[in-house]
Amino acid sequence: MEIEFLGTGAGSPGKFRNVTATALKLLPEINEVWLFDCGEATQHQILRTTIRPRKITKIFITHLHGDHIFGLPGFLSSRSFQNGDDPTPLTIYGPAGIEDFVKTSLRVSRTKLAYKLNFIELGEAGQIFENDRFKVSFKYLEHRIPCVGYRVEEKDYPGELQVEKLKELQVPAGPIYGRLKAGETVTLADGRQINGTDFIGSAKKGRIVTILGDTRSTPNIEKLAANADALVHESTYGKGDAKLARAYYHSTCIQAAQVAKKTGVRKLLLTHISARYVGPMVKTLQNDAQDVFKNTKVVKDFDVIQVPFQTNRGEAK
Amino acid sequence: MEIEFLGTGAGSPGKFRNVTATALKLLPEINEVWLFDCGEATQHQILRTTIRPRKITKIFITHLHGDHIFGLPGFLSSRSFQNGDDPTPLTIYGPAGIEDFVKTSLRVSRTKLAYKLNFIELGEAGQIFENDRFKVSFKYLEHRIPCVGYRVEEKDYPGELQVEKLKELQVPAGPIYGRLKAGETVTLADGRQINGTDFIGSAKKGRIVTILGDTRSTPNIEKLAANADALVHESTYGKGDAKLARAYYHSTCIQAAQVAKKTGVRKLLLTHISARYVGPMVKTLQNDAQDVFKNTKVVKDFDVIQVPFQTNRGEAK
Ligand SMILES: [Zn+2]
Ligand SMILES: [Zn+2]
Repeated sequence: MEIEFLGTGAGSPGKFRNVTATALKLLPEINEVWLFDCGEATQHQILRTTIRPRKITKIFITHLHGDHIFGLPGFLSSRSFQNGDDPTPLTIYGPAGIEDFVKTSLRVSRTKLAYKLNFIELGEAGQIFENDRFKVSFKYLEHRIPCVGYRVEEKDYPGELQVEKLKELQVPAGPIYGRLKAGETVTLADGRQINGTDFIGSAKKGRIVTILGDTRSTPNIEKLAANADALVHESTYGKGDAKLARAYYHSTCIQAAQVAKKTGVRKLLLTHISARYVGPMVKTLQNDAQDVFKNTKVVKDFDVIQVPFQTNRGEAK
Repeated sequence: MEIEFLGTGAGSPGKFRNVTATALKLLPEINEVWLFDCGEATQHQILRTTIRPRKITKIFITHLHGDHIFGLPGFLSSRSFQNGDDPTPLTIYGPAGIEDFVKTSLRVSRTKLAYKLNFIELGEAGQIFENDRFKVSFKYLEHRIPCVGYRVEEKDYPGELQVEKLKELQVPAGPIYGRLKAGETVTLADGRQINGTDFIGSAKKGRIVTILGDTRSTPNIEKLAANADALVHESTYGKGDAKLARAYYHSTCIQAAQVAKKTGVRKLLLTHISARYVGPMVKTLQNDAQDVFKNTKVVKDFDVIQVPFQTNRGEAK
């Protein structure tokens, strides 16, 4: 599980940061990439990475401002050329209006996609996706227009059968290993009773990634971020700009760091950086946030951040 | 007058060529820049040039395929930030549907432009713009969807009053110079009659630039290109691919060169180059066209081509 930042700027594209797009790479897990927002020229950014467009199966849109959606029609069209014989469907999640925008763009440009495109427009906050490996939920944030944050939760990995331990006890290999793994109690030929649950290792906790849209400080951020292994938070403003941030419905680096600290986040990734911050000013933004929450990084375009499993915060069993 | 190529690729953006956009820079003439097509990330390309978005007062769209229009919403939005106190209006010309696409994009993204945006959707072929310096007309080409080519004609520059010649004849300077310049016959105090038309230099012929959309070979191209100082012609296919080109409603480099030769074009600029053509193959494309029409150039992104006045083909008087 990795997060690759495809656009880390605010508002308009600049020379150093493109407008917003964040890829959650779930390749070892499910061989898919999920995209969060898709500003103009996201497909151009993807050309410079190893991401293959057909691996992108879901796009989660946080809000409908142009710098978060104007790359959709072009990306969707180009993805159509790069699909093989068995085109992978794609689902777009986002606030009401996203379907209108995309469908108008495709209709006017007479674009026929080779793959199936689904839309799920957001209604009441809550869970919007679940399969056997992941679930995704969202809550509303506070921006000038409806805007959400997404919380992706990986399900816990079941414990492994401790085969070595069974072999030590000379429990013969065979179909009974399957029954033991399922937690059954099995009677062996020699009369011994073996309880499977005694031989299953502890479960590995799934990871949590929270990716927010543009927002000013609001209590829902804490709920979305609770215990996240990685929190992607906007940081349009710097230390001391809390009033400006509030007025323009954005956040400061300090507010982001305070949330991370309060909610047990493991890694804070600051994005949506204004073009005003260049060179050493970016370092200052990061240092100021680190004074509040140590494990903070101001990301830049093409940064790839690993989201490792937890080893220190206890196993799930 | 210069033509700056902002995107010279075909279909999808590639690593070396962006999708279509061509800027006709009329800065010394009227302090404006006119854009022809606006593929995705045209605003990103503009960031790498000296073109200021607010100087762009007209955008001419040749057809509604995504690689020619998906950069519009982003460009229009960003232009709004870069306008000063007195925002310059902008007019978009293009096939029916362009207004729907742009207005839906702006409405869904809740974008309020700081300047006035006008639309002129194309109907019957003919003239669509004229002022005291330029006129623009268009004709339909042959593509899978309605697609046009534009012909921009600069009006002739009136001849200058030959002041030196008048001074030699000791015609006294003063308001009568204005009347002479207007072509009047003036009676001097000493009784001499001076005919203004005898003292007006020859007019300087205005220039003609023709910029085509995607098209297969069709007679209207010749009408649009006649005597053009510069012809911007697509060249999606190479020599020997005429059948493919016809089937896919595109042109070969040879077809473009033949038109240029036949219609008295001065400079042929080949664009809309497929990503299949890389390195030495581009040179081959150019050489093949030059065998037919010497003054041919396969352009690349950020090429700036001068369009000089004619000196050899006679003055207009
Ligand atoms: Zn934004
Ligand atoms: Zn095209």
